[in-house]
Amino acid sequence: MKKFINKTDDILKESLSGFATAHADLVSLNLEPNFLTRINKANNKVAIISGGGSGHEPLHAGYIGYGMLDAACPGHVFTSPTPDQMLAAAEAVHADKGILFIVKNYAGDVMNFEMAAEMLPFESATVLTSDDCAVVNSTYTTGRRGVAGTVIVEKCVGSLAETGADLQTCKALGDKVNARTASIGAALSSCTVPAAGRPTFDISETELEMGVGIHGEPGRRRETMREADAIVTDMIEAILTDFKTKDLSPTHQEALLLVNGFGATPLMELYLIYNTAAKLFAEHGIKISRSLVGNYVTALDMAGASITLCLLDDEIKQHWDSPVHTVGLRWAM
Amino acid sequence: MKKFINKTDDILKESLSGFATAHADLVSLNLEPNFLTRINKANNKVAIISGGGSGHEPLHAGYIGYGMLDAACPGHVFTSPTPDQMLAAAEAVHADKGILFIVKNYAGDVMNFEMAAEMLPFESATVLTSDDCAVVNSTYTTGRRGVAGTVIVEKCVGSLAETGADLQTCKALGDKVNARTASIGAALSSCTVPAAGRPTFDISETELEMGVGIHGEPGRRRETMREADAIVTDMIEAILTDFKTKDLSPTHQEALLLVNGFGATPLMELYLIYNTAAKLFAEHGIKISRSLVGNYVTALDMAGASITLCLLDDEIKQHWDSPVHTVGLRWAM
Repeated sequence: MKKFINKTDDILKESLSGFATAHADLVSLNLEPNFLTRINKANNKVAIISGGGSGHEPLHAGYIGYGMLDAACPGHVFTSPTPDQMLAAAEAVHADKGILFIVKNYAGDVMNFEMAAEMLPFESATVLTSDDCAVVNSTYTTGRRGVAGTVIVEKCVGSLAETGADLQTCKALGDKVNARTASIGAALSSCTVPAAGRPTFDISETELEMGVGIHGEPGRRRETMREADAIVTDMIEAILTDFKTKDLSPTHQEALLLVNGFGATPLMELYLIYNTAAKLFAEHGIKISRSLVGNYVTALDMAGASITLCLLDDEIKQHWDSPVHTVGLRWAM
Repeated sequence: MKKFINKTDDILKESLSGFATAHADLVSLNLEPNFLTRINKANNKVAIISGGGSGHEPLHAGYIGYGMLDAACPGHVFTSPTPDQMLAAAEAVHADKGILFIVKNYAGDVMNFEMAAEMLPFESATVLTSDDCAVVNSTYTTGRRGVAGTVIVEKCVGSLAETGADLQTCKALGDKVNARTASIGAALSSCTVPAAGRPTFDISETELEMGVGIHGEPGRRRETMREADAIVTDMIEAILTDFKTKDLSPTHQEALLLVNGFGATPLMELYLIYNTAAKLFAEHGIKISRSLVGNYVTALDMAGASITLCLLDDEIKQHWDSPVHTVGLRWAM
């Protein structure tokens, strides 16, 4: 294992400290318990808090700021944060309208956020993201996994919260975006967790892992490596089948297409994937009117990419387009 | 070699098409000759054009837009674009105040941009970037290489051009930013050029390449892999020595610190590098007042990172802070 690290035990602290120093105009870091908040506390709004294991950067700390998260609780690499972190973060950002947790559906995260919610002296609600259509139940989950679509949920809910919407309205939008979003990933290499010191899984030069999770956990099956168009065709098919299963027809709908890199895949390849995916969705009558291409929800140094389709309606579109000012997403329309 | 590609010959066209489709609000693509321009042509300003081999994304096409480039000419992977591309791009974006080429100092790029400049029916000037302090003369250069500091040059010159400044004033700022910028990179792995099909160089599990170029070309020396702090200490030392050689004292100066990933290095590691670099520069009396951390000038799928320090003055700071609206950099102050 070759990485830019010092002691394995210090990676998280050193990396978070670097993040907070580099982005001191946007975020403030608390250590022990570890959490990050907006530099300027928001008033009179639902406080949006997310978190999860580290190694998925810029998720979640990179999405703290106006129009998105109020706080993020990073666990160790691929390890859930603990309730003391959520409680301290909630205390810091609570703004009189309750706390909304956005949690990716993994057993550890769900348990820890549930414990925090029970202990919380404030009203709270939780949006569980589960956009990964690759597998039902998996290594770390009961039910589907939350993956790259989480960014879209955080963006839209964060936007709505800025308008002063109440807790249940924010939760309802988060649940709706999640239900209208499907993702699937494919890995060409494993990632290497620093504390483990070796690749999470072995994969040969002629294979890919279809439906891989963002911790390198198994997907649907090991497949023979082939041309990008063939891989993307299968991924699109999985997404379209998922919408059909949910009785959502994407045909003639507007959609957001997110092509997400897992960490070690060059932008050239992500745009090549986007090119094919956009064409294939168009052939199915889907109008891609919003796009995002890059490393938004990563798996350390895994080579691979995921495709996410979110079916837009006027409400989702409005909240996707609204101004956002974070490290990972930044625009003003 | 495992990559998300179809035919090797089609990578560039498919990737550029994906880029132009995903960012149709910002850029317009012309194929054969290949160049990209702003979607809305600017008026009455120096037209800023850059270009170079592909594989360094988001450089250069990702920096097209308000406050930065008017056009970019992508060559094949790690291969210079040709004069017909620059001529066609210049024709498309010329806005009555001449053309400024921003060119990374590599023999092929220099030759092709020079040929274009000679054939151009417009007034032109060129800023050659050469911020890499690792080596003097190298595989593809006479003189120093232009690397990540090129982004800072493009940002500042692009900002100045928006004010209506004339060609020579824009060139002078570019030359000044380049002179006040020093970079050095370190690679933990090679990159793999698709057309070659195998890694550009071999490197063992216990080695790093100090001073590596952004095409995987050799740097200063092959070193034994060690903790991040030790690697970063040596990189900072190289940068400080370079400023000393140029009779520029960074002590008590404000500076911009860019920690750039080469493509396969996780953000966690880049922020860990940033954390150490910022501390070490502070110990040398340098005030880091601007920061950028991420994949801005990449080398396909190389694992590694570079550190860039740019000594700010009021003019550079103003142009760094000014609004920019591109795929790779986007903010409004």
